Amino acid sequence: MGMLQAEKRKIYREAGADALFLEPDHLRRYLTGFYSTDGYVVLTDENCFFVADPRYFEAAEKALKGSDVTVVAGARKEALALVKDCKTLGVPFPFVTLSSAEELRGAGFTLLDCMPALKKAMEYKSERELSLIGKACEIAEDALLQLLPALEEGMTESAAAALLEYNMRKLGASGVSFETIVAFGANSSVPHHETGETKLKFGDIVLIDFGCKVEGYCSDCTRTFLFGDDGKHEEFKKAYAEVLKAHELVKETVKAGMTGREADEVARGSLRKAGLDGLFTHSLGHGIGLQIHEYPTLSPRGEEVLGDGMVFSDEPGVYLAGEYGIRIEDSCYMQGGSVHSFMHKTERKLIIL
Amino acid sequence: MGMLQAEKRKIYREAGADALFLEPDHLRRYLTGFYSTDGYVVLTDENCFFVADPRYFEAAEKALKGSDVTVVAGARKEALALVKDCKTLGVPFPFVTLSSAEELRGAGFTLLDCMPALKKAMEYKSERELSLIGKACEIAEDALLQLLPALEEGMTESAAAALLEYNMRKLGASGVSFETIVAFGANSSVPHHETGETKLKFGDIVLIDFGCKVEGYCSDCTRTFLFGDDGKHEEFKKAYAEVLKAHELVKETVKAGMTGREADEVARGSLRKAGLDGLFTHSLGHGIGLQIHEYPTLSPRGEEVLGDGMVFSDEPGVYLAGEYGIRIEDSCYMQGGSVHSFMHKTERKLIIL
Repeated sequence: MGMLQAEKRKIYREAGADALFLEPDHLRRYLTGFYSTDGYVVLTDENCFFVADPRYFEAAEKALKGSDVTVVAGARKEALALVKDCKTLGVPFPFVTLSSAEELRGAGFTLLDCMPALKKAMEYKSERELSLIGKACEIAEDALLQLLPALEEGMTESAAAALLEYNMRKLGASGVSFETIVAFGANSSVPHHETGETKLKFGDIVLIDFGCKVEGYCSDCTRTFLFGDDGKHEEFKKAYAEVLKAHELVKETVKAGMTGREADEVARGSLRKAGLDGLFTHSLGHGIGLQIHEYPTLSPRGEEVLGDGMVFSDEPGVYLAGEYGIRIEDSCYMQGGSVHSFMHKTERKLIIL
Repeated sequence: MGMLQAEKRKIYREAGADALFLEPDHLRRYLTGFYSTDGYVVLTDENCFFVADPRYFEAAEKALKGSDVTVVAGARKEALALVKDCKTLGVPFPFVTLSSAEELRGAGFTLLDCMPALKKAMEYKSERELSLIGKACEIAEDALLQLLPALEEGMTESAAAALLEYNMRKLGASGVSFETIVAFGANSSVPHHETGETKLKFGDIVLIDFGCKVEGYCSDCTRTFLFGDDGKHEEFKKAYAEVLKAHELVKETVKAGMTGREADEVARGSLRKAGLDGLFTHSLGHGIGLQIHEYPTLSPRGEEVLGDGMVFSDEPGVYLAGEYGIRIEDSCYMQGGSVHSFMHKTERKLIIL
């Protein structure tokens, strides 16, 4: 995927391994650009192989024609045959299963964690990756804008989520990047509310956290609205203004060279001044790529240094159990040392629907 | 979920462990019924705990109130504190990551594989589970019936998939059970074709492999149609009849006590008589539950013995590269020693749309 084989080889060589042995779907896709629900990517000093079973062989041959990846028919046995002369294998410890690891060790291989090098490669996005994430963000925003006029009293959270997802699909997404969260009223106070049969009422808070995929790359967005103003949301409105302030402050002041912890503290410190940090119960953000939760981590424990090419969410939130919840989230990228949002179409200020 | 704590404890006790330490989403859900994208289920001789972080704590408390599961606020550290007096932990080797395993071993725990016992428990579905899978199947079929009249020349595979998924969502599904496969024309010859921008033409084969989730439980269905008859599909029609024969033969003759391998051979043998077994390039079926691919496995390597309460797909297929593909799939269950289909609404015989 634009990555030279020499670059790819760093992934196992930095771990000190003789070859790379990859099983997880999203990592196979990262290395080759080809998506399947099964298969192996094996990278040795001589060659890069995609091992595909009959369900995927034809498609893999077609997709990888002319690339530097050789498609091999088979499954685990055939993948292992490709590394029979290796003593050490680079595998991603956070994604390989213990079953697979025990089997590989039982066959005499020493396993070395290739995730540090893989993570380093994956957290800096290429132009192509930035463009796909940008497309997934554009679709998400357009889909939301199509949804808003269709929201009406009595509509269930599930029906709203279904329509939003359909809009994203029609606009070209291959699917959702995670289960769409639509929370009406007090349900918004549960940060990861399970979308259900609650019906929309006048004066309700509407929190929507959603995203879609384009060629595997994810978008992630949250907006919080009021469905009409019943005059009973003064505390909510004040908190909303503080969350928005924290959200914008991150975009304005987080710079390359800061750690994820320092970025998190920009938002947390801002909410602290308003006495709301105790209600900001999660991290500021997470990396976004082929998985919805990637590196870097923007949290009180985020030690990674942020840099150009990284993609992450900026999503401060405030939750008062049983009362209200607010989250404002953009998918962002760092370029020229500063934070830029992928989201240009939807407002962040409070909208009364 | 209806399972007594004594039953649940077998899961780690059969492995010889002091406690159960579960991380994977679907297994936490299996043990407690509560869904979250993060958390831990810890089962000891004294208690069953769900460890939830602030994003899920409120929802977990609400969902598990009155159950035998105690909700604990926290994350990994808090989960580990619950097993501090244990020496051995039961973890599911095929789902635990090597990172987690190394960390647990580093902390002094001996890990034992609880998957054999968990698999045994999970492959026999309870009445509740059968009912949820049945509901997911009913929604899938209804959604397909709503889609068929909307198919028209020039419609893309993606647009058809989007509409089908929207229908399932509107009918009450929480999402898809896997990425919907819609393949038009020769694309059908790729068993796991990636749904794309190919447009529907008169005379095309239409292969749709899809499913949805209800409370986490999956459905899986495939139907193959002709979009008008251009008179050029004689070989396809003959092969269709053979695939249908194999599909029905499985339902009629597979019985409790047979192995997955024997069940697979029922279909494979039938296709062999027609000289088509070389084009049946995948397994007959797979177990279905909280994951779309579960136990038992109905394949030439399926050694498990089939029994009442098991749920699996019956999906023979025939694929001629670049020409055509056919797959006919029902989600089925075994009861009274015989195979029953969850699918009662859609035809299996060839339909010309």
